[in-house]
Amino acid sequence: MGSPGDRRAPGHTRQELLDHTEPSTECSMPNPSLNSVGKRVGRLNGPDIVTGRTLYADDIQLQEMLHGRVLRSPHAHALIRSIDTRKARKLPGVVDVITAEETDGLSILARKEVRYQGDKVAVVVAENPDIALDAVELIEVDYQVLGSATDPFEGIAPNAPVAVRGAKNEDVRDENGKRYRNVAARDEIVQGDVDAAFAKADAVVENIYRAPYWHQTYMEPNSCTAQAQPGGRVTLWTSCQGSFNIRSAVADALKIGEGRLRVVPLEMGGGFGAKNRLFCEAHAVFASIRTGRPVKILINREEEFLDGHPAPGCWVRLKTAARKDGSITAVEGRILWDGGIGGRNGNLARLVGPYNVPNIRLEGFGVRTNKPTPGAYRAPGAPQTAMARESNIDALAHKLGIDPIDIRLKNAVRKGDRTSGGVTLPHDWLANTIKAAAKEARWGKTGLKKNQGMGIACGDWQNGSGPTNAFIALSEDGSVQVLTGQVDITGLHTVMAQIVAEVLTVPVGKVTVQLGDTDKVPYTSLSAGSKAAYSAGTAARKAAEGARERLLQEAADILEAAPADLELKGGKVSVIGLPSRSVTVADVASSAMDSNDGPVTGQWIVGKIPTYPSYSVNIATVEVDPGTGRVHLLDLVAAQDVGRALNPMLVEGQIQGGATQSIAYGMMEGMIYDEEGRVRNANLLDYAIPTAPDMPDIRTVLVEEGCEHGPYGAKGVGEPPIIPGAAAVANAIYDAVGVRVTELPMTPERVVAALDQARED
Amino acid sequence: MGSPGDRRAPGHTRQELLDHTEPSTECSMPNPSLNSVGKRVGRLNGPDIVTGRTLYADDIQLQEMLHGRVLRSPHAHALIRSIDTRKARKLPGVVDVITAEETDGLSILARKEVRYQGDKVAVVVAENPDIALDAVELIEVDYQVLGSATDPFEGIAPNAPVAVRGAKNEDVRDENGKRYRNVAARDEIVQGDVDAAFAKADAVVENIYRAPYWHQTYMEPNSCTAQAQPGGRVTLWTSCQGSFNIRSAVADALKIGEGRLRVVPLEMGGGFGAKNRLFCEAHAVFASIRTGRPVKILINREEEFLDGHPAPGCWVRLKTAARKDGSITAVEGRILWDGGIGGRNGNLARLVGPYNVPNIRLEGFGVRTNKPTPGAYRAPGAPQTAMARESNIDALAHKLGIDPIDIRLKNAVRKGDRTSGGVTLPHDWLANTIKAAAKEARWGKTGLKKNQGMGIACGDWQNGSGPTNAFIALSEDGSVQVLTGQVDITGLHTVMAQIVAEVLTVPVGKVTVQLGDTDKVPYTSLSAGSKAAYSAGTAARKAAEGARERLLQEAADILEAAPADLELKGGKVSVIGLPSRSVTVADVASSAMDSNDGPVTGQWIVGKIPTYPSYSVNIATVEVDPGTGRVHLLDLVAAQDVGRALNPMLVEGQIQGGATQSIAYGMMEGMIYDEEGRVRNANLLDYAIPTAPDMPDIRTVLVEEGCEHGPYGAKGVGEPPIIPGAAAVANAIYDAVGVRVTELPMTPERVVAALDQARED
Repeated sequence: MGSPGDRRAPGHTRQELLDHTEPSTECSMPNPSLNSVGKRVGRLNGPDIVTGRTLYADDIQLQEMLHGRVLRSPHAHALIRSIDTRKARKLPGVVDVITAEETDGLSILARKEVRYQGDKVAVVVAENPDIALDAVELIEVDYQVLGSATDPFEGIAPNAPVAVRGAKNEDVRDENGKRYRNVAARDEIVQGDVDAAFAKADAVVENIYRAPYWHQTYMEPNSCTAQAQPGGRVTLWTSCQGSFNIRSAVADALKIGEGRLRVVPLEMGGGFGAKNRLFCEAHAVFASIRTGRPVKILINREEEFLDGHPAPGCWVRLKTAARKDGSITAVEGRILWDGGIGGRNGNLARLVGPYNVPNIRLEGFGVRTNKPTPGAYRAPGAPQTAMARESNIDALAHKLGIDPIDIRLKNAVRKGDRTSGGVTLPHDWLANTIKAAAKEARWGKTGLKKNQGMGIACGDWQNGSGPTNAFIALSEDGSVQVLTGQVDITGLHTVMAQIVAEVLTVPVGKVTVQLGDTDKVPYTSLSAGSKAAYSAGTAARKAAEGARERLLQEAADILEAAPADLELKGGKVSVIGLPSRSVTVADVASSAMDSNDGPVTGQWIVGKIPTYPSYSVNIATVEVDPGTGRVHLLDLVAAQDVGRALNPMLVEGQIQGGATQSIAYGMMEGMIYDEEGRVRNANLLDYAIPTAPDMPDIRTVLVEEGCEHGPYGAKGVGEPPIIPGAAAVANAIYDAVGVRVTELPMTPERVVAALDQARED
Repeated sequence: MGSPGDRRAPGHTRQELLDHTEPSTECSMPNPSLNSVGKRVGRLNGPDIVTGRTLYADDIQLQEMLHGRVLRSPHAHALIRSIDTRKARKLPGVVDVITAEETDGLSILARKEVRYQGDKVAVVVAENPDIALDAVELIEVDYQVLGSATDPFEGIAPNAPVAVRGAKNEDVRDENGKRYRNVAARDEIVQGDVDAAFAKADAVVENIYRAPYWHQTYMEPNSCTAQAQPGGRVTLWTSCQGSFNIRSAVADALKIGEGRLRVVPLEMGGGFGAKNRLFCEAHAVFASIRTGRPVKILINREEEFLDGHPAPGCWVRLKTAARKDGSITAVEGRILWDGGIGGRNGNLARLVGPYNVPNIRLEGFGVRTNKPTPGAYRAPGAPQTAMARESNIDALAHKLGIDPIDIRLKNAVRKGDRTSGGVTLPHDWLANTIKAAAKEARWGKTGLKKNQGMGIACGDWQNGSGPTNAFIALSEDGSVQVLTGQVDITGLHTVMAQIVAEVLTVPVGKVTVQLGDTDKVPYTSLSAGSKAAYSAGTAARKAAEGARERLLQEAADILEAAPADLELKGGKVSVIGLPSRSVTVADVASSAMDSNDGPVTGQWIVGKIPTYPSYSVNIATVEVDPGTGRVHLLDLVAAQDVGRALNPMLVEGQIQGGATQSIAYGMMEGMIYDEEGRVRNANLLDYAIPTAPDMPDIRTVLVEEGCEHGPYGAKGVGEPPIIPGAAAVANAIYDAVGVRVTELPMTPERVVAALDQARED
């Protein structure tokens, strides 16, 4: 792989680019009185994870456990003429073979039609995985292969193959009145007078962009184990981002009540949105109910690619108009989402992004293709649309001779503007983040050499909220237990511990956070949508405040004072003004256990809280080798408007991880489908993801302007960082060599092709 | 074992004794409007238990798990001259050998003195249990054997061997001014003018009673597994009656903070009070911290006898005086509790019992003996003292020519009396229970034959209360999850489910109850002291009422009505008077998940609630074979004042189980110590416990006069049934053959001896 130096600009030291002294955190809300929040606390579960003690889904081993393996369609689209399971059933060690016929009308296995390579046809349940795999091979399926659609642009053609037979589609016509094929959903945004705006524009840019299916490639493929109990309930252990979500989905798939299921979420080896949805959980539960024995199903890496929940690709035609001063006046275009068999549509407004644009005419199609229905992947749809939007804005800036920073500042949403989510912005969050990024990157001040370029792009994300909870109890030694239903992603539980420690003025190490399964906590929504720390952090804070109140009440009895005369500080409750009249949290907690009101506890259930957008800005510096088309990423500044960094180390980790994924999408990743609709790179040898030498040290900038509804001013931080990276690289390539690559990933071949095309023009 | 008929009176059919038609439930508080509470609901975890799916402590299997075995003292009392562990350490597969020297001053292993047979000397930790056992045998200990005290009466003699060297004892003197040995504790009750009362008495009875150590003989010997985690915390799985109690005890033993421990209580295969305390949990935790690997220690049956927590025996001298009319005027006496190495004292007031006695002079000693410190066993101390008290009262009745029923009714505590627990009795609970028992037994109406007799005895128990909790959440399908820290004993969780179902008007089958470990719930006190259903049932009811309130609030939004205008009935919320305007609990629960206030939940934390006594009355009918001394128990009526039978089937089970244990204590059980202080019957072949053919079908009578503080009027029911059985048999033997057996168990040998003695007198 070579040393990191190999990957940087030949002849230039990184130091030349970094030669500045500004601090890297743009913190406008310092709060020196905080003791735990805002600190760089290591992940509390880190030692267990790195020493291999943490239990992951595949670590579940149960007595009498069987193993399920799935027979999958080798074809992108075919009819099933017949399935012969006789040989498989006869194989010693095979306990059950399940096809659609055995499912009593459920839709968990293909009945007559397979709709994508990897579509589930049968499940074999056997004494061990090897037997199950052997038996899968013994099942004989007679297919009649059908034509398939795997590209959304070609897929809507009036004469394209039908992707899913009998599926209900929209009646949308082309300019000749011919009905488009495979359009499962259509939406539009129409606002103002677009045609007039284009007519009056000083500059117009129109481009077509393409992006491929894109896999989350988390470290841990999905695994689940189900155990049916004699009383009729089933316990399911799985790797997921939300136990209740999985519970609902299995209940729906199997047409049983949610209460029959107990879902135990295990530590997750990465999810990024994919583990919001089912893999084979319903199949494991069904097989366990049938066999009366525990059944484990482990998905391998190839199955992850063939039948996971990757991000959708898309085809975008986008036209943007601006006046001389840089004001964007109109946006017009169409996006075709590569929607898999579900024809899943995306959020059309993302093509407008965090800018005030008066005239809009956009149309979005959810196109059915012969691929698994795409799932969520960190800021779903935002990186794809940012690529188009931010490239067009960049091109406009160049056309108008305006600095790419200035054009964005000119159009950015501002304090007082209403967001599409219905809240009024309390700060110039985006503008301040753009400025912070520019400052860190020394925008305009860095002497770039030939074939080097710098590009900026912005992204916005409205963090979510949803049911969550925290239950707090204190132990005799003053330690604090927290129970929540919110699955830990990227350190959520550590942050909850910091918040609780802050409120109760105890060291973070005294706080433990446990994840409750669906039998132990109320309904809790997904750890997704950049909402976990925002919502569950709020629950933790409120619950801790409840515990503090109880602590003061109990201390008041001990100290013979009114609760209002007491203060909690440094793990002690004392009478205000009389620090010697004090009692430790441990003593109060211990004493409370024998009191009339019982132990010191606090609970909080969140339903909904108002949510706010947050913004990310990337500035990429690249050097392009015009001969090979190879793009070297020299530097990446990733600034983000985080409200309050509850744990700067973890927030920086989020930003670095997200930016890396975005850069990877921009430069190397993407699932490749052949003409028969088969995935050509369904493994981690052929599907390129970045490794450490592929990336510079990302320079993160945290912009902290608090959000009143988040805990201590925090906003969601998980999703924004993945949005602008690919577009920033595209804009940097343009700045370096004057060509615009519009198809992702921007591989050397595509860069060379763009350079060749430019020379031809 | 012969057919059950063999064990009954020869020549008499059971039908002759049972020839009556009265109903067997004395229910004075019927409430036909209850749907779930008061019903005979089978234990919800029954199917899992009987099919072997339930996880017990010994089912815990962890990767890399080691096995610990304990080297125990073979002597009742000895000094340790030296311990040589070299051979043991060299045995392949041995990972660690721990003696007191390795414990850094902790008191978990004998250092210089072993104080009872079974006292812990060393722990071997090995790759498997066989190696551990082999290594235990390779440890060479050089003992200097000392004299031992195993009988409390002999143990207090001024010249008796010292049971525990250096132990602090009370300075108590005999009539000659010589200091008693081994008296660890002394207490007394002095009230009124006892001497005057005895002087004026119309009848006086004085007897000496003895009772042996008595083991709980639960099905599941203790097992525990500890796993130290890299972060410094330790998880402990164990079979226990209270996870927090075990946590505190381990923390104390190892001098670490409670917060470092997570105790996971498993389903318990019987505890009866013994599993309130530690077995080898501290040792397993210590060994896991030392080795860095999980360590399991399983106690075998012999170890259970040698180093369990059996009930104490005692020596009692009791003198009781009464007037002609049967009024008991004075009680005087002394009890020597066989207190093991801890010299544990008992509750002296139990010698007075549930009767109003004006003049009292009682003295109690906790005597150190070379036995493990006794633990709790179902109504600790009550069966032993009831034997003395109820025998004396019976003897007084016979002396005065008063019916044994009448003398008890005459002296029974009554409505308006204050209990020692400080509450005023709201009903004639005891008197009504005596009457109900007499009615069921057809007291005085059954023609008894020669050598047949009927005996009555009473018992009282003040149920406890203490910290407990219930957390309720509703699922989309209207099912209800309950989380509690209260360990399930004899169906507690089923009863909690019934209570929750009652409040929320859903079927019991829709409710699941889960036990939370110490990281998931607030401090919860033991499932012991007849308080589980009383306290945790109250928590369940209050939590359910909270959930109902939230349900009505959410339904009010859906139905566009005020919550006060709504009623919850049959799983539906409807507008009062407009049953068609209704919505199901499932729909409300489902809708709430997307509401501003979040899912339907309810929580309740109990600290303390007032507690009340409850009463049990047994009437035994026996036939004695004067030749062999064999006593046939022909019939047993067990009446109990239960407040409200939340689940009559489970309450009857409690009564039958308790009565069986009491009868067994009366007739066959007891640990036998030889002259060297060694247990002669430390196994279930030699230690007699009853099997089904040993017992008649116990006729239970539930007296239901509600208690305002218990859920739906319930009182604690677990302990009272074990109290009066042995005494009732003793009184029945007297009724049958005119002799009083005063030492437990009343074996055929002792009956014959008593008959021989009577003939001699």
